[in-house]
Amino acid sequence: MDSNIKSVGVLTSGGDAPGMNAAIRAVTRAGIFNNMKVYGIYRGYRGLISDEIMEFKTNSVSNIIQQGGTMLKTARSADFMTEEGRRIAYENMQKHGIEALVVIGGDGSLTGAAIFANEYNIPVVGLPGTIDNDLNGTDTTIGYDTALNTIMQSMDKIRDTATSHERLFFIEVMGRNCGYLALNSAIASGAEAAIIPEISIEKDQLAELIEQGFRKSKNSSMVLVTESEVTGGAMKLAERVKKEYPQYDVRVSILGHLQRGGSPTAQDRILASRMGVAAIQALMEYQRNVMIGIRENEIVYVPFKRAIKKDREISREMLEVLRISSI
Amino acid sequence: MDSNIKSVGVLTSGGDAPGMNAAIRAVTRAGIFNNMKVYGIYRGYRGLISDEIMEFKTNSVSNIIQQGGTMLKTARSADFMTEEGRRIAYENMQKHGIEALVVIGGDGSLTGAAIFANEYNIPVVGLPGTIDNDLNGTDTTIGYDTALNTIMQSMDKIRDTATSHERLFFIEVMGRNCGYLALNSAIASGAEAAIIPEISIEKDQLAELIEQGFRKSKNSSMVLVTESEVTGGAMKLAERVKKEYPQYDVRVSILGHLQRGGSPTAQDRILASRMGVAAIQALMEYQRNVMIGIRENEIVYVPFKRAIKKDREISREMLEVLRISSI
Amino acid sequence: MDSNIKSVGVLTSGGDAPGMNAAIRAVTRAGIFNNMKVYGIYRGYRGLISDEIMEFKTNSVSNIIQQGGTMLKTARSADFMTEEGRRIAYENMQKHGIEALVVIGGDGSLTGAAIFANEYNIPVVGLPGTIDNDLNGTDTTIGYDTALNTIMQSMDKIRDTATSHERLFFIEVMGRNCGYLALNSAIASGAEAAIIPEISIEKDQLAELIEQGFRKSKNSSMVLVTESEVTGGAMKLAERVKKEYPQYDVRVSILGHLQRGGSPTAQDRILASRMGVAAIQALMEYQRNVMIGIRENEIVYVPFKRAIKKDREISREMLEVLRISSI
Amino acid sequence: MDSNIKSVGVLTSGGDAPGMNAAIRAVTRAGIFNNMKVYGIYRGYRGLISDEIMEFKTNSVSNIIQQGGTMLKTARSADFMTEEGRRIAYENMQKHGIEALVVIGGDGSLTGAAIFANEYNIPVVGLPGTIDNDLNGTDTTIGYDTALNTIMQSMDKIRDTATSHERLFFIEVMGRNCGYLALNSAIASGAEAAIIPEISIEKDQLAELIEQGFRKSKNSSMVLVTESEVTGGAMKLAERVKKEYPQYDVRVSILGHLQRGGSPTAQDRILASRMGVAAIQALMEYQRNVMIGIRENEIVYVPFKRAIKKDREISREMLEVLRISSI
Repeated sequence: MDSNIKSVGVLTSGGDAPGMNAAIRAVTRAGIFNNMKVYGIYRGYRGLISDEIMEFKTNSVSNIIQQGGTMLKTARSADFMTEEGRRIAYENMQKHGIEALVVIGGDGSLTGAAIFANEYNIPVVGLPGTIDNDLNGTDTTIGYDTALNTIMQSMDKIRDTATSHERLFFIEVMGRNCGYLALNSAIASGAEAAIIPEISIEKDQLAELIEQGFRKSKNSSMVLVTESEVTGGAMKLAERVKKEYPQYDVRVSILGHLQRGGSPTAQDRILASRMGVAAIQALMEYQRNVMIGIRENEIVYVPFKRAIKKDREISREMLEVLRISSI
Repeated sequence: MDSNIKSVGVLTSGGDAPGMNAAIRAVTRAGIFNNMKVYGIYRGYRGLISDEIMEFKTNSVSNIIQQGGTMLKTARSADFMTEEGRRIAYENMQKHGIEALVVIGGDGSLTGAAIFANEYNIPVVGLPGTIDNDLNGTDTTIGYDTALNTIMQSMDKIRDTATSHERLFFIEVMGRNCGYLALNSAIASGAEAAIIPEISIEKDQLAELIEQGFRKSKNSSMVLVTESEVTGGAMKLAERVKKEYPQYDVRVSILGHLQRGGSPTAQDRILASRMGVAAIQALMEYQRNVMIGIRENEIVYVPFKRAIKKDREISREMLEVLRISSI
Repeated sequence: MDSNIKSVGVLTSGGDAPGMNAAIRAVTRAGIFNNMKVYGIYRGYRGLISDEIMEFKTNSVSNIIQQGGTMLKTARSADFMTEEGRRIAYENMQKHGIEALVVIGGDGSLTGAAIFANEYNIPVVGLPGTIDNDLNGTDTTIGYDTALNTIMQSMDKIRDTATSHERLFFIEVMGRNCGYLALNSAIASGAEAAIIPEISIEKDQLAELIEQGFRKSKNSSMVLVTESEVTGGAMKLAERVKKEYPQYDVRVSILGHLQRGGSPTAQDRILASRMGVAAIQALMEYQRNVMIGIRENEIVYVPFKRAIKKDREISREMLEVLRISSI
Repeated sequence: MDSNIKSVGVLTSGGDAPGMNAAIRAVTRAGIFNNMKVYGIYRGYRGLISDEIMEFKTNSVSNIIQQGGTMLKTARSADFMTEEGRRIAYENMQKHGIEALVVIGGDGSLTGAAIFANEYNIPVVGLPGTIDNDLNGTDTTIGYDTALNTIMQSMDKIRDTATSHERLFFIEVMGRNCGYLALNSAIASGAEAAIIPEISIEKDQLAELIEQGFRKSKNSSMVLVTESEVTGGAMKLAERVKKEYPQYDVRVSILGHLQRGGSPTAQDRILASRMGVAAIQALMEYQRNVMIGIRENEIVYVPFKRAIKKDREISREMLEVLRISSI
């Protein structure tokens, strides 16, 4: 179970997610623990091309486990989408003697990793780092639990004022065509409903949903909406409701970029630590072109192709839990 | 120094603010401590008219000091703007034997209190409850410190992602024509600048400010903007910047209603407790038509007329501190 | 799949745990949703005996999902350990027409539930409510994730001062002979080691562990210790270290009861909501004497007998992750 | 109002306090803004002797305003207590061309600063950095507001469990013979009483206080105790109460070192920013041997001698507010 890999580079790419630093820390230390040289690559694939590469020691990653964002920075790189860009990237790896890569990011980042790995026959392992939890083959992604708690805490604050004023709030959260974050946030924050891309909502249902919210002795109502073309977003929905139900005191809140930041939760730090250790393990086992996933609390290897295929289903049980617990 | 007041009603009115519950608790307990009957009036002046009034005991206000919002709810009342409405309000007070009022709210609420107090010769004492800190005669208002910390914590999260991506962020905060919240939030969060209604900003200054943000080795930039007609808001400003400086990766975040909620900070709970105790004290001293203020850490009585006169000045020292500490 | 149960009582018992309120809310609403009458029983089994029972409506549980502790209070009841006590409890249930019980608590509470259920042939379903995560048949318990995050956040604060002063800290956490909480907290907070009841630590290992902590460029060291007779606790351990390694600046922190409180995390609220809905579902399916568990993210029914059997194993993978990521 | 000072060193000394980083940032940037060279001195006076000194640029202090602890580390130095130690310190300053010092710390640190300044005729300005708020001539110190909020948040958690179990809690907080922190924490957290060094408590009062706590419908009771020889600490007090009032379910919690850490509050960051800017200003105005203080929201200069004289009084108003609002 030993490998010949003597050096590995680690980078973060695409949208940042809380827990990326914990993942960088675990990759770095697991690499060094297993007698590899570890290189931090700054600004994602862009830095691989512009040669922003630095050797890391165990203390290069001290005191970062609790920090949001990514100490390696992240960027999107148009150059890496070109053959020429990837060639320079490869040459830089050779120059530093970097034999393998660990890429932390979402589906775009893993897609890029797959192309690069195939083109130059480089061992690449991916870690799922995205708040959207929209990757396949893993129950959860690094950053998702923190974003969920950040949204929930924001909703707790909004509930204070919603309840004091007896209002109807539409709150827009991130998710990129994936309602997972909105649905679970709605359950966690005691919201009345979640309007998500996976389930189209008819005009009558919206009416029912809103009336249910104010039914009986309920004195405020919060509806989560996924930012998405399908749902139209919270602003459009609120406009529609204001027109059709002028009796309600409607307000909109778009949570925005604060959902991406913040000190990671325990779950995200533990997940990132496990996955970071597993990534080095995978490389030592001659795995490549796989994303580290977690299924039923066990580490699994997910082929890139399967990870980035979009077919996550929304859980019927969770829809039911939301519907029942919000009556 | 004793008074004949044997019963007092307490209500919250206008926009809610964190710490209102701590104020209700202190008013209630100080009233009972001084052998008064205390009545909780729900939904502000509206509940005074619709007779939503309940006698409070010491344990009616247990376990609320830490809660955001207001347990008494709040509302705006068009009826109270009419003579007829105020007459019914007065009759309800007489029915319950309520001799005096403590009103917790912002300038609109205190204006209403002043009219009512004069019309029916009722002892009324106001407490400044608003996150905007836009009342006169008091250094700070109940709710301001919590809102300041809420904004700062949101900005800490945004900084994580701003730094990871090297972006320019415009963040809009509340304040209603008062830049106090934006300016202090900017200092507390290490932002580059605050665009506030009190100080008009020329096009050249905006350019300078933005370029300064990205100068040298700074890798992200955050600008606070007060929600106001004068500033135009964060969205408009960002549009302008995007057009004139297309090289920047500009993002906007509108913090919205979460600024009003949340468990109050220590400062707000202590301030509310002191002011609540002082309100009862003021009534016992035959004070009326005054707002309780805090000046230089001492409780003061501020005539309503002076409290609601808008002439707060922006501190030159604070502008200087922001300018110097963000280089 | 329908049942004849027309009314259900819900109680919390034993040590309180964050998320109990979310569970009470879900049980109440799922009961009402399924046309049952729902009764809140105060102070656990003690209130069942002293008849502190109240019918709940959907809004009896409004605005509690975010609150720590338990609105139903909890208590330990010596009387319920007697036949006479349980007879009175049963008579009270009959008086109110309560046909079934949902008991939220740890192993002691579930043991009591099992005895009572057998004695009077009452349908009883348990929910695992304990921060210790020491029940069998479920991957996690209500309250565990919140306690984990509370510990982690306390450790983040301690790290600030530990790093500034270059100190060795022993931090004692709860767990009652179960090292799960300490081990996972150690990974999440970037601690150097966890001393847990499941793994005896030899003197030499302690030395190695401490020296490792200060090795190379590490500038502070934190060791988690489970409160337990086996480990001896943080204080005893620190005494030993101070004597044998006088060169270290050793400090102790016993986190204590704050670990039990606080607003529940998203995971705990979601888990409690799912389990509360599932408890009513289980009763409708004629399940009884089972605890609701979660295994591999699916709801399962665990016979009481199995749930309270202590044989949880400590995860080798997690020990490995801690060891590697803290080098 | 210009000075000849061309370079300044900044160090943190003694116990760390949240906001020290914000102060370092402001001193650094204000120095550079005013065309000085700025040197960061690591590990307090110890680093001044062992020459751990580094020139700082504006970006040396980027992204630290939100971090607890001190990036410059802190230490106590026995050597600096000797003439020989201070001589080496002075020589190191001369070697680097450092003409003036800004010292951030508590009374011990300022005492050392005063001696050094007099001995070598060096311009030294102090900033009050301590959570204890036990310095004279300033209304508040850097770190105090954060510690106050940290204690309050811990108490909010403890209240959850105290209320659920109906218990009497003694909670010990820091303060070093100064009850300021305990008294204000008690008001902020809705505790029943504060036992502080400034006010001796008779046996009868303790009884009254405890009985008051459980009187009427109060269902839990929390008493804050300053860690101090005078009070005896929470543990001793609890022992006494357990013996004399065996009917109460008494628990103790010692908050410990977590009180020193954590991301600083807005007040502490703003205070530290103002004071840091003011320190450079003071040096430019030929002030020396003064501590920067804040009085009635204005920056003041306090001679070292006066700052470290212990005669802070406890506020009668605050004692009254606590007594009334906790009935």
